[in-house]
Amino acid sequence: MRPAVVALGGGHGLSASLSALRLMTDRITAIVTVADDGGSSGRLREELDVLPPGDLRMALSALTDDSDWGRTWRDLLQHRFTSDGPLDRHSVGNLLIVALWEILGDAVEGLDLVGRLLGARGRVLPMASVPLRIEADVRRPGGAIDVVVGQSEVARTVDVIEQIRLDPPAPPACPEAVEAVRAADWVVLGPGSWYTSVLPHLLVPELRRALLETTARIVVILNLTPEEGETAGMRPGDHLDVLRAHAPELPLHAVVADPASVDDVSSLAVRCGELGAQLLVRQVSRGDQRAVHDPLRLAAALRDVVEGYLGDVGTRASG
Amino acid sequence: MRPAVVALGGGHGLSASLSALRLMTDRITAIVTVADDGGSSGRLREELDVLPPGDLRMALSALTDDSDWGRTWRDLLQHRFTSDGPLDRHSVGNLLIVALWEILGDAVEGLDLVGRLLGARGRVLPMASVPLRIEADVRRPGGAIDVVVGQSEVARTVDVIEQIRLDPPAPPACPEAVEAVRAADWVVLGPGSWYTSVLPHLLVPELRRALLETTARIVVILNLTPEEGETAGMRPGDHLDVLRAHAPELPLHAVVADPASVDDVSSLAVRCGELGAQLLVRQVSRGDQRAVHDPLRLAAALRDVVEGYLGDVGTRASG
Repeated sequence: MRPAVVALGGGHGLSASLSALRLMTDRITAIVTVADDGGSSGRLREELDVLPPGDLRMALSALTDDSDWGRTWRDLLQHRFTSDGPLDRHSVGNLLIVALWEILGDAVEGLDLVGRLLGARGRVLPMASVPLRIEADVRRPGGAIDVVVGQSEVARTVDVIEQIRLDPPAPPACPEAVEAVRAADWVVLGPGSWYTSVLPHLLVPELRRALLETTARIVVILNLTPEEGETAGMRPGDHLDVLRAHAPELPLHAVVADPASVDDVSSLAVRCGELGAQLLVRQVSRGDQRAVHDPLRLAAALRDVVEGYLGDVGTRASG
Repeated sequence: MRPAVVALGGGHGLSASLSALRLMTDRITAIVTVADDGGSSGRLREELDVLPPGDLRMALSALTDDSDWGRTWRDLLQHRFTSDGPLDRHSVGNLLIVALWEILGDAVEGLDLVGRLLGARGRVLPMASVPLRIEADVRRPGGAIDVVVGQSEVARTVDVIEQIRLDPPAPPACPEAVEAVRAADWVVLGPGSWYTSVLPHLLVPELRRALLETTARIVVILNLTPEEGETAGMRPGDHLDVLRAHAPELPLHAVVADPASVDDVSSLAVRCGELGAQLLVRQVSRGDQRAVHDPLRLAAALRDVVEGYLGDVGTRASG
């Protein structure tokens, strides 16, 4: 049986990991941040008091069945209106998901139904059952600490983020998401905006506990380049340190990095070793100017990770 | 083979005829007015310069497959947002249809795709390929003639409507609609807002020509009660006279009326006879306070009409 994989994240980073994972397995669960407060999602959240749907929509789109039917409805979901009026920049998929939530009264049921429409290869779940707000303590150049409120503000911060918090501080996890983490063979963290898409999952108590207690192996996919804003100037090892600082007990089993984004492979390997994780350095980028993961190369790297571990298990079982 | 039926109209009246027809046949084509300028459709037309989608959406909903899947997506299409913001009263189905038009660049293809989503028992087409505006010459109590512009204004008019016109005056018909009329066994006109939903089809030149030239038999379903506004005070025979005045050469083969809405059956029967049409008086209402057609009773009446004619044909064929 193909491995059961849970991918944690949000936005374009999560779409990248899902686009790769769908080439390896159809037992995928995406667990998605629900703290977005910008763009179409932010406006819907404000106007209709709902979970921000945008990152959930993008994850569903990434898992869409590769058929005429799937592609057409995915294109519809991803379509945005353009006008001089109030619909300008609204995403059709966001409106559709929110409407299903209003009709069905259940976020997971609504997302599952959109997944059926798209023939999605896997399931997309929110990390929490309520809309969240992200707050960050930010160290200004003079040394003062400011509190920055809201995901879009935090993502734009160019100063050093000391810590992030959620509001409400201990939100209820989505039960199906907790269950998926506990039942997974593999959990994938990243790539993505580190503070606003990857770390927030660790601040949802039941989800954090499941991540600490699951028998799944955890693999971190590092970003290709530091993003503008929240992680400006951070190097690959720094991302691991920040992850460690937010969840010291979290076991890591593997780290995937692109050679072009690592200037000192051996020190990163040492850092991974200290964390108990194997480092796999492989080209996983498209290799052009854009800092985007290539689904095929990332899938190959993840397969190497999974098979390496399965190989270990096999050796031990037969030894 | 079950009969191929084309239903002409718009709004709730067309939904009533479609809800009945779907019980008789799955070879249904709805041809729908595209002159609405009120509500969610009016706002979309204004903001995005598209065909008004609302009446098309309602027709698709009426033809939806009676399954969990069909019902859920129909409920989504019919759902309206409620808020203090700019989405208030927008129909989700209208937004979805317009987005498909923007993606596919073809109104019919978009409607066919929504029909597939719903498992619709038939096809829904716009009567024209461009958005229309309805104008009416209205006789005021003092005798003066005013021009009233826009479907929602015309529908609210309480004075006598002398004539209606379309702007543009000779709009291009939807080619698939013309073809459906020419290939039909039966064409159903009404029930519905007489001036704003039933007559406009006769003002689209190619559609009018197809209606005059088709070998299909034409049946008129009369309204249960005069509506407030545009047909206030008009009796069943008056509706036929207005139809005649707008299309003198249109052959009529049958007229269906509810006994409770006809105060003088024999004079209506004479009027129908002059027009060459059989009058069928049957209870087709729900029979409660609301003036709504009962799909089952209307289906039974339409079956009687169709079988009566098929019976004739049978007699002649074997005679």
